[in-house]
Amino acid sequence: MERPQTFFDRLLEVPLFQGIGRGEFMEIAGNVKLAFHKVKNTSVIVCEDELCRSLVFVLNGSFCSEHVSDDRAFSLMEWGGGPAVIQPENLFGLRTRYASTVRAVGDVQLLEIDKHAVTEILARFDIFRINFLNLVSSQAQYSRRLLWKSQSEGIERRFVQFVADRSARPAGHKTLHINMIRLADELCVTRLTVSKMLRKLEEKGLLQVGRQRIDIPMFERLLQEISAVG
Amino acid sequence: MERPQTFFDRLLEVPLFQGIGRGEFMEIAGNVKLAFHKVKNTSVIVCEDELCRSLVFVLNGSFCSEHVSDDRAFSLMEWGGGPAVIQPENLFGLRTRYASTVRAVGDVQLLEIDKHAVTEILARFDIFRINFLNLVSSQAQYSRRLLWKSQSEGIERRFVQFVADRSARPAGHKTLHINMIRLADELCVTRLTVSKMLRKLEEKGLLQVGRQRIDIPMFERLLQEISAVG
Repeated sequence: MERPQTFFDRLLEVPLFQGIGRGEFMEIAGNVKLAFHKVKNTSVIVCEDELCRSLVFVLNGSFCSEHVSDDRAFSLMEWGGGPAVIQPENLFGLRTRYASTVRAVGDVQLLEIDKHAVTEILARFDIFRINFLNLVSSQAQYSRRLLWKSQSEGIERRFVQFVADRSARPAGHKTLHINMIRLADELCVTRLTVSKMLRKLEEKGLLQVGRQRIDIPMFERLLQEISAVG
Repeated sequence: MERPQTFFDRLLEVPLFQGIGRGEFMEIAGNVKLAFHKVKNTSVIVCEDELCRSLVFVLNGSFCSEHVSDDRAFSLMEWGGGPAVIQPENLFGLRTRYASTVRAVGDVQLLEIDKHAVTEILARFDIFRINFLNLVSSQAQYSRRLLWKSQSEGIERRFVQFVADRSARPAGHKTLHINMIRLADELCVTRLTVSKMLRKLEEKGLLQVGRQRIDIPMFERLLQEISAVG
């Protein structure tokens, strides 16, 4: 009998369920089908370009999401942990498909609520509706603001900004798959400048450079280092 | 007695009210306060950084919106016409303030619904709620996608992309206020390259260059020209 309690506690940590009491949650659970299931390491939780038929919550465990650029030339992998909701901004709107692929890292507990049921919850539960509107509106505001920011000065800052702008959160383990020519193009500098910059950050232990691959174990350390330098 | 009919017809052209029937609209109008009012030429309809206390619709007339970059170094002015809803993505979320200033061009008819009333309508009217979710989600998807697009090749395309990415719609009259050094920085080219590119587009009658100001009478013509060239 401990399981529902645990799930409930985990759910309350997801912004979408914040402020929802136990009684109200039980009412939701009694009205719509909540599908709890487990997946194993490397299982695909959601797949890029697949239709969003449900809202997926990672309750326990870790996951890795990979976003590929439009021209398939580079990608960013990000690791995160539950509780979290996967791409809620893609459930409605013009393009109701997942923007990135999310895979389980180790055993992962999921909660899936199909879109029809989400629509029901949005209609009936005020707090959930306001939470959902706040979440999606924040996403819209955040992405739009990025376009109006001034470009960071200095190549290191520009590189960190490039990764941060494309990240779901400004911390954690990230891997950028990109070739040096493309990265130089994206940062508007020469390939040599990019190589030097990366070598410097590698010497400081902030990242590892591989073949068409830059591994950043803790992005927050890179962010701190760069802000401290400026 | 003609006025409500006209307002209603205009409102139905706004995506937020699409699919709402006359009966349902009358029910909304009977339940919440809808404030219709007129403003004169150059009046501020909404002001940048001001708290979004209401959802504002331009029913009839034209408006000009101005978005200033974070560092106040450049701005984009765009002209548009009603029926339209002003920045619905800023009513909820982390930053519920207007992102740009919108002014009336000539006489303008507005409909204003205060946030509390919008919350009521969102709770009670399924179509409006789904329309609102679709609108804000689309904004979030659109802005996010821009980050993953590959940079346009060629300086002309990059300039057009720079304006398009920051525009609410890819057509109409736009004025970019920016100095040439900053524009060169933003496009990652030299000042001379920017000047040459602008002169060429000016000779084709696609834009006029003034002091720290680029005026584009019909952005759709510039877009067409650039796609045709490629």
